[in-house]
Amino acid sequence: MAFDLTPTTAAPDAAELMGRLKRVRARMAEQNLDCYVVYDPVNVFYMTNFFNYVHERPFILVIEMEGLPKFLVPKLEIPHVQSRIKCELELVAYFEYPAPAGKNWYDYFAGLFQSDVRVGVEPAMTLEIYDKTPGNKIKTDIIDEVRFIKTPFEVGRYAHACQVLGLGFNKLMEICKPGTMLFELYGDASKEMMAKAVLEIPEINPLATRVAAIAQPPSISHDPHNFSNLFQQMEEGGPHVTILAGQVDGCGVELERTFFLGSVPEDAKKPFEVMMTARSMTYDRLKPGTNMGAIDKEVNDYFRKAGFEENLLHRTGHGMGITGHEGPFLAEGYDRQLEAGMMVSVEPGIYFKGLGGFRHSDTVLITDDGYAGLTDAPDSLE
Amino acid sequence: MAFDLTPTTAAPDAAELMGRLKRVRARMAEQNLDCYVVYDPVNVFYMTNFFNYVHERPFILVIEMEGLPKFLVPKLEIPHVQSRIKCELELVAYFEYPAPAGKNWYDYFAGLFQSDVRVGVEPAMTLEIYDKTPGNKIKTDIIDEVRFIKTPFEVGRYAHACQVLGLGFNKLMEICKPGTMLFELYGDASKEMMAKAVLEIPEINPLATRVAAIAQPPSISHDPHNFSNLFQQMEEGGPHVTILAGQVDGCGVELERTFFLGSVPEDAKKPFEVMMTARSMTYDRLKPGTNMGAIDKEVNDYFRKAGFEENLLHRTGHGMGITGHEGPFLAEGYDRQLEAGMMVSVEPGIYFKGLGGFRHSDTVLITDDGYAGLTDAPDSLE
Repeated sequence: MAFDLTPTTAAPDAAELMGRLKRVRARMAEQNLDCYVVYDPVNVFYMTNFFNYVHERPFILVIEMEGLPKFLVPKLEIPHVQSRIKCELELVAYFEYPAPAGKNWYDYFAGLFQSDVRVGVEPAMTLEIYDKTPGNKIKTDIIDEVRFIKTPFEVGRYAHACQVLGLGFNKLMEICKPGTMLFELYGDASKEMMAKAVLEIPEINPLATRVAAIAQPPSISHDPHNFSNLFQQMEEGGPHVTILAGQVDGCGVELERTFFLGSVPEDAKKPFEVMMTARSMTYDRLKPGTNMGAIDKEVNDYFRKAGFEENLLHRTGHGMGITGHEGPFLAEGYDRQLEAGMMVSVEPGIYFKGLGGFRHSDTVLITDDGYAGLTDAPDSLE
Repeated sequence: MAFDLTPTTAAPDAAELMGRLKRVRARMAEQNLDCYVVYDPVNVFYMTNFFNYVHERPFILVIEMEGLPKFLVPKLEIPHVQSRIKCELELVAYFEYPAPAGKNWYDYFAGLFQSDVRVGVEPAMTLEIYDKTPGNKIKTDIIDEVRFIKTPFEVGRYAHACQVLGLGFNKLMEICKPGTMLFELYGDASKEMMAKAVLEIPEINPLATRVAAIAQPPSISHDPHNFSNLFQQMEEGGPHVTILAGQVDGCGVELERTFFLGSVPEDAKKPFEVMMTARSMTYDRLKPGTNMGAIDKEVNDYFRKAGFEENLLHRTGHGMGITGHEGPFLAEGYDRQLEAGMMVSVEPGIYFKGLGGFRHSDTVLITDDGYAGLTDAPDSLE
């Protein structure tokens, strides 16, 4: 399959969603399932184009081997569901949660199943939904697995989402100076990203859209999930680390860069070089057939040999998709091969308290014979 | 207990969190549990003041009857956890997800339990966490139940969060004119709310903060969860319905008003009056000891008698708390009494396609002898 990386912004059509349904049913057949119960809102979105926030009123999709999938929803949400879905579904409504006896969501839910069926359920399903699901239940990640391989439609949408990040990156570089505060970067760059998304995506879904552009100065960049102080100022030198991340109308992507303002401190040069070498090593291995756990092991072995074992905080990469943070994983112990159509982050990193963090991250598509980067930003010490 | 409604903005202190822990342990003792496993990030936040986004790396709190609670976290997040927690915890770190055999999160997790223990688990826990939890597992909503009754500390924080909404409401009323677009309202009013929150709450947690100020014009206000068109314009007349909602540093609150621009259409007068009567009926019943299901039944019976059965889309109210949308419920079939310290939305509503929606919503605290509104906005047809 050749991938066209041209950015696109249209919603999925019925054929796209039918293709996904067919792939789900193919796996259901392999596993001898009569139906599959979908509760995870991310999987519901993937199958229908409808996105719900999770709260106490459940939305549950039941997929059988034939016929229209059935979608159990609160009555209140029917127009909302109808305004978003891009495939045919049989809608089954319940009035409220909770409800008088016989009128609860689970009373309607139970009616959706034949007797003695083999029912696949998501491991991410909650116990309360699981307990109300009838039949012989088998835990299996069918839709999560199908989502691993992006369709040509998705590739175009993710390419566009990465363009949105690129715009945010450029804005951030423009306004980022020693003394600039974190909330200023966030405010200005995130706003530009959101404006591009809203103006260019005709049917954008605000429930599946959020963007963030931030940067960490060297005094905190050793602690990559610390954004607690919105008044934190950018500093002379570096390493600063930017994080551009977002879910752009359901496309989760990221772009991160280590950068310096003014000068590069002497003791930052070696870690930067080592990180860049680890990054090249990763790219060299990105093609169908490579074991994903082995990539992370080789990269970590290289870091360990360079004397930076104590400075590792995370794996080399993770899958990109609707959530922006999901399987498959470039992680030691993950015994699985790369396949064309997978999309991953490439982000080997090392962290030094008192010096800072060293990490670039890109959103990368695995192609038939290698990879294609979807994010675009300078990566050298210029 | 007398409630002080003075707005406050400080983070919870160790005594506040110890009080919560004691109440959780009291329920554990009643249910004869040796420990309770907390996976829901909302419950983790309630117990520790640390908020995590859910992704594939789990954060799990294990509470025993004595000793420090144990908190299993990814190594990467230790500084982040330490920067937020306001109680003593024993941190147990794992390196990554996934990981080589013997070093996965569940290997460390299993080590946190004595043998043959009775373990309480949340019904909202996912199957994959449940499967890795050892012992004799009992599903029970202990922390959700404790959260139902707000502490004096929480009341002050929720009062402040409601002030943030009040500011957004005033801004929205100021800029809302026929022709104003939804995204303009959202942009300007949400920004003011966020600025107030960020400037006034010293240790605000961005992960637990989001605000939204929107309004639906009469052509869509019959469909209360429809915000799909960001370019939707406000109209002459009404009913428009505003929604001010947010999680302000972990305090979920809402404020909604039906309003008219210019004139009130003749056929909107009766539904507005009926909604207002239903609202008064609800308030008249808000005091400790009233059955919550019975309130909704009486309100719905009143709507039915008025001929509006077909125009009901939801219950009279729901609990307010960290998520802004949770138990306890003012809903037919919910057989439970109001208690002092509970906080609920009061929002009986009716909806007419072609005419619009009629709903006010307020965040209301149940007091020893009645109720106290935390949100403040005009409610009449002026």
